[in-house]
Amino acid sequence: MTYSLAIHGGAGTILKSRLTPEREAAYHAGLQAALAAGAAVLRADGRALDAVTAAVCVLEDDPLFNAGRGAVFTSAGAQEMDAAVMDGRDRRAGAVAGIFGPKNPVLLARAVMERTGHVCLIGPNALELARAAGLAFEDPEYFFTEARWQSLQKVLALAAEGRVSDDPAQRHGTVGAVARDRAGDLAAATSTGGMTGKAPGRVGDTPMIGAGTFADNATCAVSGTGHGEVFIRWTAAAEIAARMRHRGDSLEAAANAVVMDELAAVDGSGGVIAVDRDGTIAMPFNCEGMYRGWVREGSAAETAIYADAR
Amino acid sequence: MTYSLAIHGGAGTILKSRLTPEREAAYHAGLQAALAAGAAVLRADGRALDAVTAAVCVLEDDPLFNAGRGAVFTSAGAQEMDAAVMDGRDRRAGAVAGIFGPKNPVLLARAVMERTGHVCLIGPNALELARAAGLAFEDPEYFFTEARWQSLQKVLALAAEGRVSDDPAQRHGTVGAVARDRAGDLAAATSTGGMTGKAPGRVGDTPMIGAGTFADNATCAVSGTGHGEVFIRWTAAAEIAARMRHRGDSLEAAANAVVMDELAAVDGSGGVIAVDRDGTIAMPFNCEGMYRGWVREGSAAETAIYADAR
Repeated sequence: MTYSLAIHGGAGTILKSRLTPEREAAYHAGLQAALAAGAAVLRADGRALDAVTAAVCVLEDDPLFNAGRGAVFTSAGAQEMDAAVMDGRDRRAGAVAGIFGPKNPVLLARAVMERTGHVCLIGPNALELARAAGLAFEDPEYFFTEARWQSLQKVLALAAEGRVSDDPAQRHGTVGAVARDRAGDLAAATSTGGMTGKAPGRVGDTPMIGAGTFADNATCAVSGTGHGEVFIRWTAAAEIAARMRHRGDSLEAAANAVVMDELAAVDGSGGVIAVDRDGTIAMPFNCEGMYRGWVREGSAAETAIYADAR
Repeated sequence: MTYSLAIHGGAGTILKSRLTPEREAAYHAGLQAALAAGAAVLRADGRALDAVTAAVCVLEDDPLFNAGRGAVFTSAGAQEMDAAVMDGRDRRAGAVAGIFGPKNPVLLARAVMERTGHVCLIGPNALELARAAGLAFEDPEYFFTEARWQSLQKVLALAAEGRVSDDPAQRHGTVGAVARDRAGDLAAATSTGGMTGKAPGRVGDTPMIGAGTFADNATCAVSGTGHGEVFIRWTAAAEIAARMRHRGDSLEAAANAVVMDELAAVDGSGGVIAVDRDGTIAMPFNCEGMYRGWVREGSAAETAIYADAR
């Protein structure tokens, strides 16, 4: 069997007019680096779970993407991060919500899965687990980026006038990865800083298993990005798997039905990346763009932002 | 159209030998009181959402059930409560996790749904919302019960010897309600203190939309109780709805398939209460007992604990 890997760095109305060629190149480079990290694991006969973790770590470390370093700010000016992983072999899952401190939230989500009998941890005890697991911590200066801070000021200024930003891409963002390894196992990982100006304590779809993150060898692995509240209410990721299992839909048909029909009908702006047990990749999104990349064994890694390229 | 209401007060290996006749009568009385509160709303042409909220408040106020007053203790000796509501009309949902202070966590979940643009809130800001919404708070003495405290001591003593309790009913527990009102709308509500001896910060299936709580007029309303981590990984509540929508299963067939087959196969001990748009009620559980009650317009309210009575 051959491996497949897909990643995303967030979806939204990414306005081409605001993206300089330099910045666009930086996004492509960041996506390529994440693909390379994940593909290296898979090429060495590594597990899908390790590949998606490795890819998401690279995106968390890149300040261009809204996760880990470069996460957005809450309305109170803090950074609160959510992350999740899921292993398609046995549907084991781990998640954290509202954390700040660990360099790579996705590694803490994985520690919850591997070191506790629980799926989701929040609060000080999650950070204690990170310390017990020997995970790296970083100072607030590490996570801070001027661009995200300015986005918050803009959102707060507009909110004071009772308005919302005309550029959702400034507000949203998530990173994620899905993979099938050479053993045929699937896995998914997602990590995010949430929405700029979100209420402190808001938990989005990322750590909600079945909403923004899902993996089951019987069907597919999915990572979502977009308007989290709608993804939660429509259990977006699990719904793609359910359509495959109960209707016999192909991955592409199932992912398109959920993203292009169900979510779009209720203003659920966003997209997903998904891979099935045959290694097929689907990456539908119902907005102007989604930072994304994909690689299948034997083919070159590709990246794209807008709808024109797949 | 006629109304239907079902409630639960938790599932598990409820050992008949440990239940005195007095205590058994108290459980039935508590369930009847909750049914009466919910049915009063429905009989007055009230909404399903108001009915499930009213029924769950009564169960939260009753120290016999593991939610609100009488919630179980974490391994650190604290009480941390999770709750969720979902409205089948538009799939709006609200949830809180890890909170302590509000008398009725289900009312705070509803405030999240009705007063914020978010679905799930955690931490101090959730309590601020409770204050802004004018919700009642109680002191620690109100929530404390000697029986739950003794359960924790037992769990901790066993854990010190590397063992787990032989009586899961002492450890688990959740309360919930599902309803169809005379307008044909569905709603679900769930509230819990979690598991005795759980890790601080552990979030269970209750506030995970699609795991322990779900409602959609197109299919059904569901509230679950049992081994929360398995309910999350199998997206138990949403899976019942998915089987109805995509396979055309009846409510009973879908609920049985998920609880008696899927969850039972992976040690997912527990049960659900569910109602569909026709007002049909299903209440499967795969363990010895589930505290439960149900009433359909024109029939007397009934309650049961073990498998012998429906």
